[in-house]
Amino acid sequence: MEQPTASFRVREQKLAMSPLDHLMKQLAKLPGLGPRSARRVVLHLLKRREAVFLPLIDSMTRALRDVKECSACGNLGGTDPCEICSDPGRDRSLICVVEDVADLWALERSNAYRGLYHVLGGTLSALEGIRPADLHIEGLVNRIKSNQINEVILALNATVEGQATAHYVAEHVASMGVSVSKLAHGLPVGGELDYLDDGTLTAALKARRKAG
Amino acid sequence: MEQPTASFRVREQKLAMSPLDHLMKQLAKLPGLGPRSARRVVLHLLKRREAVFLPLIDSMTRALRDVKECSACGNLGGTDPCEICSDPGRDRSLICVVEDVADLWALERSNAYRGLYHVLGGTLSALEGIRPADLHIEGLVNRIKSNQINEVILALNATVEGQATAHYVAEHVASMGVSVSKLAHGLPVGGELDYLDDGTLTAALKARRKAG
Repeated sequence: MEQPTASFRVREQKLAMSPLDHLMKQLAKLPGLGPRSARRVVLHLLKRREAVFLPLIDSMTRALRDVKECSACGNLGGTDPCEICSDPGRDRSLICVVEDVADLWALERSNAYRGLYHVLGGTLSALEGIRPADLHIEGLVNRIKSNQINEVILALNATVEGQATAHYVAEHVASMGVSVSKLAHGLPVGGELDYLDDGTLTAALKARRKAG
Repeated sequence: MEQPTASFRVREQKLAMSPLDHLMKQLAKLPGLGPRSARRVVLHLLKRREAVFLPLIDSMTRALRDVKECSACGNLGGTDPCEICSDPGRDRSLICVVEDVADLWALERSNAYRGLYHVLGGTLSALEGIRPADLHIEGLVNRIKSNQINEVILALNATVEGQATAHYVAEHVASMGVSVSKLAHGLPVGGELDYLDDGTLTAALKARRKAG
């Protein structure tokens, strides 16, 4: 068939006609949203055009324009270098290596860490074809070389990919005269033994410490 | 205190500085989203600026500009009157009354109805101070007066407010020579008796029909 069928043409016209359907389709593809919640969001926005919709478009436009990736650590923020890298109160001898900006933010919310970060941008994965060159490992090596770094903390996810990546990074920086550590495995605070998987229990048992 | 405290000023500065935090706060207030999913959405968008973020802002801007409320029925769409009101294939003697545009779309997805609609824009609620004048009831009365309407179908939610509103609308249009009906109560298709509430079972039993 050389020409599109009539029903195809009608559908194309409908798609071109409806800014609503188009927007809902795009929203439905965002993480955590689906067709139903996209509809709810669109109706919510269209009912509050001045109070919610317009300010949201404004903020998105500003974020798209102004949010920068920190050229040192890979964090996202309004400045480059980012707030953390340019904060004189942070301990510049520590680098905490994370997979993703979301992990960096999670650690920041915990308020438990006052050093610097390094975002790898993912994990090694043979399945998805992600090789060491695709991650920001060279940047990490350069930062260790050109700064006074004492310790690299590997805060990667406790998944197979995360742990394989941690292993690779550890080997890569082992010869550079920095101590390399990784987050402890064990019981989550508030966790009940009965609900934990065997792997976590085994790890918690192996890493047991003197009580009291 | 006449001057803002130092900590207040610092917080204000941070808010002004971070387009990211500002955007995440706005997204977190949308229905179905929270702080966590707002963070995920923002990171998703910032990683795909050209492919996702920019087109999304585009669609939102276009929707804000082009989506109109139908002056006849209250539906949202690219045209006024809306696609449904201007469709010559619809039965113009039927008006289905719904609370919200979302309900109208749900009925359209079912493909079970080929008449016109009327969106009330909410339900009567003493608690929230929503009176008959706040709903589009006058518009409905005018449409019935000036068109050949045979039947008004009340498709309001089976909530206390929805049913009270249905009762009010039914009384209001009863003297206008149209037949007024409402959706049947009963078992949802695929529903199991064991999981249904008493109210639904009672309604299904009362409205039982001859089998076969």
